[in-house]
Amino acid sequence: MVAYGCFSFMIRVGVNGYGTIGKRVADAVEAQPDMELIGVAKTQPNFEAHTAVERGYPMYAAIPERSPLFAEAGIDIAGEVDELVAEADVIVDCTPSGIGAQNRELYETHHTPAIFQGGEDSDVADVSFNARSNFDAARDADYVRVVSCNTTGLSRIIAPLEEEYGVDKVRATLVRRGGDPGQNSRGPINDILPNPIKVPSHHGPDVKTIFPDLEIDTLGLKVPATLMHVHALNVTLEDDVTGAHVRQLLEGEDRVYVIPEGLGIDGAGKLKDFALDAGRPRGDMWENCVWGESIGVNGRDLYLFQAIHQESDVIPENIDAIRAMFDTEDKRDSMELTDRTLGVGISGDPSGFSEQARAEFADD
Amino acid sequence: MVAYGCFSFMIRVGVNGYGTIGKRVADAVEAQPDMELIGVAKTQPNFEAHTAVERGYPMYAAIPERSPLFAEAGIDIAGEVDELVAEADVIVDCTPSGIGAQNRELYETHHTPAIFQGGEDSDVADVSFNARSNFDAARDADYVRVVSCNTTGLSRIIAPLEEEYGVDKVRATLVRRGGDPGQNSRGPINDILPNPIKVPSHHGPDVKTIFPDLEIDTLGLKVPATLMHVHALNVTLEDDVTGAHVRQLLEGEDRVYVIPEGLGIDGAGKLKDFALDAGRPRGDMWENCVWGESIGVNGRDLYLFQAIHQESDVIPENIDAIRAMFDTEDKRDSMELTDRTLGVGISGDPSGFSEQARAEFADD
Repeated sequence: MVAYGCFSFMIRVGVNGYGTIGKRVADAVEAQPDMELIGVAKTQPNFEAHTAVERGYPMYAAIPERSPLFAEAGIDIAGEVDELVAEADVIVDCTPSGIGAQNRELYETHHTPAIFQGGEDSDVADVSFNARSNFDAARDADYVRVVSCNTTGLSRIIAPLEEEYGVDKVRATLVRRGGDPGQNSRGPINDILPNPIKVPSHHGPDVKTIFPDLEIDTLGLKVPATLMHVHALNVTLEDDVTGAHVRQLLEGEDRVYVIPEGLGIDGAGKLKDFALDAGRPRGDMWENCVWGESIGVNGRDLYLFQAIHQESDVIPENIDAIRAMFDTEDKRDSMELTDRTLGVGISGDPSGFSEQARAEFADD
Repeated sequence: MVAYGCFSFMIRVGVNGYGTIGKRVADAVEAQPDMELIGVAKTQPNFEAHTAVERGYPMYAAIPERSPLFAEAGIDIAGEVDELVAEADVIVDCTPSGIGAQNRELYETHHTPAIFQGGEDSDVADVSFNARSNFDAARDADYVRVVSCNTTGLSRIIAPLEEEYGVDKVRATLVRRGGDPGQNSRGPINDILPNPIKVPSHHGPDVKTIFPDLEIDTLGLKVPATLMHVHALNVTLEDDVTGAHVRQLLEGEDRVYVIPEGLGIDGAGKLKDFALDAGRPRGDMWENCVWGESIGVNGRDLYLFQAIHQESDVIPENIDAIRAMFDTEDKRDSMELTDRTLGVGISGDPSGFSEQARAEFADD
């Protein structure tokens, strides 16, 4: 066991919305030595609700009229969502896009700080957040928005490049998965959709909530895949650099995994297999996965491909956002604690990955 | 009937390789008033061979030892491929990538000029060709290579931009279909593959066979789709422009179709439906299909999305290459004749598209 030291108080966390993101945030909160998961709220007693009960998470009904459905499904609820909000020090809102904004009034009524997800407009909160890029902006904020999976993925690359070389302009094409594995009513099938068709897309402005002065244009597409997004990234730097130097820089980032050439990882499918083989929960890939071989430089123009696991890359960010809001740890300590407790970070020697992951999760 | 005027002589064309490209080239040659299709060569008597026979195309065995297979399949062959090569004024080689280069010796032996496809390395021929961009470079050449579908699609956009504004740099992400509809042993399924992983990809250098002085970096991916490629294109121009001006420029290009906003065309599937509804042969889309709504400008940076039909966009180019090699028509006349006979070009008023296409193909 790792000794985590002494924490002045435990932050009592409620999770509102227990779907793809909510269930992962709940597990991540549960793994933190300085946080207590006091409950999760859910609209319906589906398979995820049953898993929550098995894990011992107090279940709250997100929609009061639907409370009886939980009883019918054999699930004892601890109460309704407003009780969870009243009891919590902070709510992590993981409801579908647009619902979070509607929920803000509930959180305000109870004077409960809240974290929203990137599906909400940026004006839902006082600050948009990425731990690596602007941790301190969320200090003592009551309402914080963790930016979307794609914006998180872009921010983690832009931050070190900006610090090390200066960034003249970013141009990114986001080849997005059509839906998550469980979203089987979404498409496309056998098509490549410019989405949004309008260029530049809204993703660039979202990155600017983290880097206000950045020049960035983005293009988005949707394709028939469910596992991860893939970014084709171009960054025009302020100075000439070498690919080797950029690679070394990115290899030094804890939440960026530079995929070594020899592993035979050619796409998202093998990345997910790699994570599942290592025993990671749900096969999550919290890190940006940058193909080392793809890091190429032409003058001041840097190019690379990275895969972004839309279901999980924001999870460590939600944990760090909580600590930033309560000002309990500084950036470095919070990120290190989050990464250590979750198992984020793949060492340069991938043979150690499985062992490391197994050791971390054996503790849960 | 359109009167085509008087042609001094008919160019006798043989097509070696009768698959996805070859069968389309054969039909296109057949539609030309100044060309005669003297035969097609094929390796095996599959379904495409039977269609060729029904169309009355003399069939030659591409591999002598396999001649008996054609007889067994009930197909009378006119001879073997070397006889076709000997009789032809020009061979259009539509064999799979790499085979064309092996065939060059056969063509040289018979002193028969030849056109190769973009799957061959550029050194297979004296000149790489795109009608809009460098028609005159192929004049009197004995060996010409029509560049690939993707390079053709890029060249048709770059040429007018270069002429009108000057191009500082092109950055293109090519989201490529994994295989053609019939190539059912190819992938990916449910994955997004950087391909090639190395950045920049080989596509940029291929465009430079047409525009030697162009600055261009390309990134390629493969996705689970079969219908068309989609390009996310960025062109940094030498001057500030407006999106409206660029749109007007591209709308003036005969082999570029700027998709109007009101048609509800959001991807390759509907583009193909549009072409099939119009009665186009095989639902071919010979034009670059640029989403009008996507044409966006930020300072000197132009962005757009275009779909490229990998099976057919090079077909008019092969026809023009023949005329360039024999110096029978100038660029404008050749391209106009090709477009008129094939039905290439969609007027700004899409309601006329079907009527136009039906009229053209009723003549065949």
